[in-house]
Amino acid sequence: MARRAVVLLSGGLDSATALAVARAEKFEPYAMSFDYGQRHRVELQRASDQARLQKAVKYITVNINLRQFGGSALTSDAAVPKDRTEGEMEAEIPITYVPARNTVFLSYALAWAEVLGALDIFIGVNAVDYSGYPDCRPEFITAYEEMANLATRAGVEGKGLTIHTPLIDLKKSEIIALGLAKGVDYSLTSSCYDPSADGGPCRRCDSCQIREKGFSDLGLQDPLVKKFEG
Amino acid sequence: MARRAVVLLSGGLDSATALAVARAEKFEPYAMSFDYGQRHRVELQRASDQARLQKAVKYITVNINLRQFGGSALTSDAAVPKDRTEGEMEAEIPITYVPARNTVFLSYALAWAEVLGALDIFIGVNAVDYSGYPDCRPEFITAYEEMANLATRAGVEGKGLTIHTPLIDLKKSEIIALGLAKGVDYSLTSSCYDPSADGGPCRRCDSCQIREKGFSDLGLQDPLVKKFEG
Repeated sequence: MARRAVVLLSGGLDSATALAVARAEKFEPYAMSFDYGQRHRVELQRASDQARLQKAVKYITVNINLRQFGGSALTSDAAVPKDRTEGEMEAEIPITYVPARNTVFLSYALAWAEVLGALDIFIGVNAVDYSGYPDCRPEFITAYEEMANLATRAGVEGKGLTIHTPLIDLKKSEIIALGLAKGVDYSLTSSCYDPSADGGPCRRCDSCQIREKGFSDLGLQDPLVKKFEG
Repeated sequence: MARRAVVLLSGGLDSATALAVARAEKFEPYAMSFDYGQRHRVELQRASDQARLQKAVKYITVNINLRQFGGSALTSDAAVPKDRTEGEMEAEIPITYVPARNTVFLSYALAWAEVLGALDIFIGVNAVDYSGYPDCRPEFITAYEEMANLATRAGVEGKGLTIHTPLIDLKKSEIIALGLAKGVDYSLTSSCYDPSADGGPCRRCDSCQIREKGFSDLGLQDPLVKKFEG
């Protein structure tokens, strides 16, 4: 019997790729997204699209309330920074940081995994193009896994729970190449921090710039850009 | 200036005591409860009472959706075990266990702490009368703290975040004595897994039995029992 895995799915390029890796490794994927008041609502539509396209056994969206805490451009009305250079992106933790986001997301994944009897969680974090988020670093993931193994029945019973981070050491271009090899349709993903009403990418925020460079490093055009350029 | 602390408040005896300890240690308490579909709704009323009585600077209730995962008597319609002996209580992880509950709660506390600029979180877990929950053990708390310090800006900036567990080594009677010395009104707390419609304790579930023994070890009657016995 295939093993179950909980896969965190944001609707972005990275998590769509992580889902494809989980499937390629013969896990039964249970996909989970979060509605945390993000301004870029198209993300959730794309997460749902990926769950359907990649045949998740089950897909759920959890409503959480990070917005009530304030503190980030992704959930408030502060301006998203645009046209920053790579040096500027690396210089500081960006204001688009959501407090403790991956900690909260992984905690829900852990709760669902425990109910499903799953011992595997996939998250598409990436330490190379990580835009300065502390909770995308390998040492954070390692510490989370150790904590999770003490938090749950699985840990008490001596079974090991694994947090899979198949993208953590990859450059954006390598992530894209990996996903393309597994048939991921990147035209049905969304990475932009400030998309237009129809879901089109702004092409100027940090996330759009990193994504576009990833495709161009492979000599490709982003199919999402192509779709919206007509 | 007093330091801010996030205090997890359930409406039970332990967390009311933890809040009193935080105040006694001169923290400005920011109290946080969770509506996770628990059947014992009176808990949330009591949490609100304690936040008011103990002058929390702010009190918020976060809606979370553990119920959609199933898996526990506290959020489903399975029967709450009653009249169990201490040996039976210790024998296994109880069905009243909510998956990854403290992991999820602490993750929200961490998010709020980060927004508040707080470096201190109080949680009333207890390893002595812990009813077999894996996420009440000291080694879980230690691992959580290590993870939290890697997850956040505070960690990146080298500031230490502390998870305070002032009750972790105390017997129930010692917790009660501590709280009474600090003026906690235990008639406005609720510990029962299966209270009556008016909030009265069943006096037969594990939690009621442990609580009642705590008071009786001090030669006292529980003021909550007294209130409902008339």
